Amino acid sequence: MYHSTENPPFATLPGGVCAAKGFRANGLNCGLNKDKNKNDLGLVVSDVMCNAAAVYTTNKVKGAPLLVTKAHLAACNGKTRGFIANSKNANTCNADGVEKAERMCSLAANALGVDPNEIVVASTGVIGQILPIEPIETHIAELVAGLSRDGNQKAEYAIMTTDTVMKECAVEFILGGKVCRMGGMAKGSGMIHPNMATTLNFITTDAAVSTELLQKALSDVVRVTYNCLSVDGDTSTNDCVLLMANGLAGNDELTATGEDYNVFRDALYFVMMNLTRMLAKDGEGASKLLECTCSGAPDLDTAITVAKSVIRSPLVKCAFFGEDANWGRILCAIGYAEAEFDIDRVDVDLSSSNGSIAVCRGGAGIGFSEDEAARILAADEIFILINLHQGNCSATAWGCDLTYDYVRINGDYRT
Amino acid sequence: MYHSTENPPFATLPGGVCAAKGFRANGLNCGLNKDKNKNDLGLVVSDVMCNAAAVYTTNKVKGAPLLVTKAHLAACNGKTRGFIANSKNANTCNADGVEKAERMCSLAANALGVDPNEIVVASTGVIGQILPIEPIETHIAELVAGLSRDGNQKAEYAIMTTDTVMKECAVEFILGGKVCRMGGMAKGSGMIHPNMATTLNFITTDAAVSTELLQKALSDVVRVTYNCLSVDGDTSTNDCVLLMANGLAGNDELTATGEDYNVFRDALYFVMMNLTRMLAKDGEGASKLLECTCSGAPDLDTAITVAKSVIRSPLVKCAFFGEDANWGRILCAIGYAEAEFDIDRVDVDLSSSNGSIAVCRGGAGIGFSEDEAARILAADEIFILINLHQGNCSATAWGCDLTYDYVRINGDYRT
Repeated sequence: MYHSTENPPFATLPGGVCAAKGFRANGLNCGLNKDKNKNDLGLVVSDVMCNAAAVYTTNKVKGAPLLVTKAHLAACNGKTRGFIANSKNANTCNADGVEKAERMCSLAANALGVDPNEIVVASTGVIGQILPIEPIETHIAELVAGLSRDGNQKAEYAIMTTDTVMKECAVEFILGGKVCRMGGMAKGSGMIHPNMATTLNFITTDAAVSTELLQKALSDVVRVTYNCLSVDGDTSTNDCVLLMANGLAGNDELTATGEDYNVFRDALYFVMMNLTRMLAKDGEGASKLLECTCSGAPDLDTAITVAKSVIRSPLVKCAFFGEDANWGRILCAIGYAEAEFDIDRVDVDLSSSNGSIAVCRGGAGIGFSEDEAARILAADEIFILINLHQGNCSATAWGCDLTYDYVRINGDYRT
Repeated sequence: MYHSTENPPFATLPGGVCAAKGFRANGLNCGLNKDKNKNDLGLVVSDVMCNAAAVYTTNKVKGAPLLVTKAHLAACNGKTRGFIANSKNANTCNADGVEKAERMCSLAANALGVDPNEIVVASTGVIGQILPIEPIETHIAELVAGLSRDGNQKAEYAIMTTDTVMKECAVEFILGGKVCRMGGMAKGSGMIHPNMATTLNFITTDAAVSTELLQKALSDVVRVTYNCLSVDGDTSTNDCVLLMANGLAGNDELTATGEDYNVFRDALYFVMMNLTRMLAKDGEGASKLLECTCSGAPDLDTAITVAKSVIRSPLVKCAFFGEDANWGRILCAIGYAEAEFDIDRVDVDLSSSNGSIAVCRGGAGIGFSEDEAARILAADEIFILINLHQGNCSATAWGCDLTYDYVRINGDYRT
C-alpha cells in the first residue's frame, strides 16, 4: 500500500463529502452548543439512494444513534439517502436515546419528503446527558433549506468537538472509463482508539459499487487505517464510519474484485489514510504527529500489533513531547506487544523532515548523536521506523504526543 | 479477600524487609546517581539460605538482571541468600548486560564470602545505557560492611527512582504456634502496568515454607495485587517480585495448602496489597489514588478485566484529576473491557472519605448533585464501585489520576 512519505497516487480535490456528484450538505448552530458561532447540527444527503457500508465501535456501550443507523440500513437493504449528525451530546447511556435518535431521523426525513428509514444518524459529545430535541426540531427546516453543493465544510464544522482543524479529503479516479470521485470528512479528537471504526467518519462517492463490495472494501481499509489510530487508548461508544456510493458517475456497477476494485480500494485507502493522519495530528492536546511503521514482520497482524503498541505507549508519547530520543521506551513497547517474534533482531530508526537516525540495532542500543536526534525530533511530524527482520509484512499506526494540553482538556471536559 | 476499606486483619510493624528474623540490609550512593544524597545501590541478605519464589515481566525485552536472577535461582534449586539492586540504570538492551549483572552478583558474593549463584540482582532506571560497573566495584566493601538489622530504609531508598515516598509494609502472624513475620518493599512509579509482576518488589519472611508452596502463594497473590495495578499502561522490561523465606521463625515447614497456608497467603496478600496501593498512590505525577472494585461479576477474570479497564483509561484518569464526576467515561471503559457481560445491568457509585454517591443505574445515568460529587472527589483517595449484578466474584484494581506532572516527568526523563 501507499505510504505517506511517498508521492501521492491520487490528485486531491476540494469539496470533501460534496466532491462526488449528487451530494449536498449543510450545517448550523441549533443551540446545543451555547457558542452561536460553532455549528452543532449537520446534514448530508444524496439526490438518489446510495449503496452503503458501515462499521461501528466494538464497545459494549453503543451509542443509541448507532443502533438506529444499523436498523435503518437493514430496513432499506443496505441503502441510505443521507445522514443527520450533531455534536456536544453523544445521546448515549440515556433511557430515551433510541427514541431521540429516531426522532432526529424522522425530522430530517419529513423535511426532505423521504421515508425516515432512508436517513441515518450520528452523535458525538458528552456521554450520559439527555439530548434536548427542541433545538433540532426548531432548526430542521432551515437545515434542509440550506443544503448545497458547497456545504461540506458547514457539515464538517457541525461534527467537530475538541478538534482544532477541519478534516476533509477528496480524490478523483477512473472506473470503466468514467471519472469517479470520493470524498470524506472526520472528527476526533479524544477517546480515540478505534476498534472497527473511529468516531464519526463519513465518506461519499459517486462510483457505482455493490453493497457487498462496498462493505468488503471498507472493512479491509478500516483495518489498516482507522483501526491503526490511537490518541489515548480509549475506544469510544459512538465510533462509526459510513461509506455511501450513489452511482451517479455512471460506471458499470462494481460487483467483484479485480483491477477496478483495486483502484476503488486504493482511492478509499488514500482518503481514509489521510483522514486518519489528520485525526492523529489533531489529537487532543497534540503538538506532534507520530507515525510508526513496522516492517519485516512475519504477518500483517504482527506488524499492526507492534506499530499500535508503540503508538499507544504514554511513555513514548511523553518522550516525543519532550523531544527526547528515549528509544528504550520504544523497545519496551515493542516488547510487550501481544505478538510472537524475536526481539533480538529488531532495528529502530527515527526520522522526520530534518533527517534520519539509527538508534537501535539487533535489540540493543547503538551510539548516536544526541544533537542530531534533537534536531530530527524538533519537527512536527515524526516517523518511528521499526524493522523486525523476520518477514515481509508491514503496517503503519498513527498517533500523537501526550502533552499538558491533553490533561487540561480532559480534566474539565463537561463544563 | 480483605478489602482496603475494612479493618486490617493484621497489625503492621516497622522494619520493612528487615522485620523478619535474620535479614540485614544496607544502601548507599555509589555514584550512579550524581545526587550524592540519593542512594542508588542496595543489598539485602539473610543469615541463612532462603527458599525463594519469583515472578518476572512478560515483556519480550527482559532486563539482563532478570535473566541472571532466574539462572541463579535455578542453579541453587530455588534458594537464595539475598539480592543486590541499583537504580538510575536498568541494565537492559545493552550488549554487555548479562556480564554486568553477573559481575554485580559476584562482587556482592565475594564480599560476603558466599557463592555468586547465591546472590540475585535487580536494576531499574533508564533502558539502553551501558551500566558503569566501577562505582559498584569501589563501593561494594562499604555496602557489605554496613549491613544491619535496621538498614531496610537505606535499601528501599536505593531502589527508588521517581518515587516520592518509601514503600514498605510488614506484618506478624502465627504458624504452628510460632510467631512469624513478613515484610516487603517496592518501588514505582512510571512504566507501571505489570503483567505477572511489577518493577522491583522484595518480600522477606522468616516463616518456613517450601519453595513450591511459596511460588503458588506468590503467583496467586500477584494476580490480584500487582497485576491489578496500572499507572500508565506501560509494562516494564525489568518487573520482578522476589519472595524469600528463611525459616528462622522455627515453624514446621509448610508444604501443603490448608489452614496455615491460608494464614500465610492472607499475610502475603495484606503486604502486597498495601504495597500495591502505595505504588498506585505514588504513581508518576499522581495527585489521587484511584481504587476501582468490580463486584457482581460472573467470574474473577471478568471482575479483574473490568476493574483494570477503568483504572487504565486516560480519560477517566484526567476526569478525576479535574475532580469531574464524568461517569460516562467510566461506563465507556467498562464497555470496551475484553470480557463478556450484559452492560445494561451495570451500576456505578463513587465514594471517598467525604461520602458516597450513585451516578449510574442499569447502564444509564441517574440524577445526582454535582456539588455533592465535587465534595466527594476532592478527597485524595477515590473509590470507584462497579456492580455488574451478574455473579458473585469481585476484584479490585489500583491506579492514579493523570496529571500535568506525569507529562512533565516523562517529557524529560533521561536528562
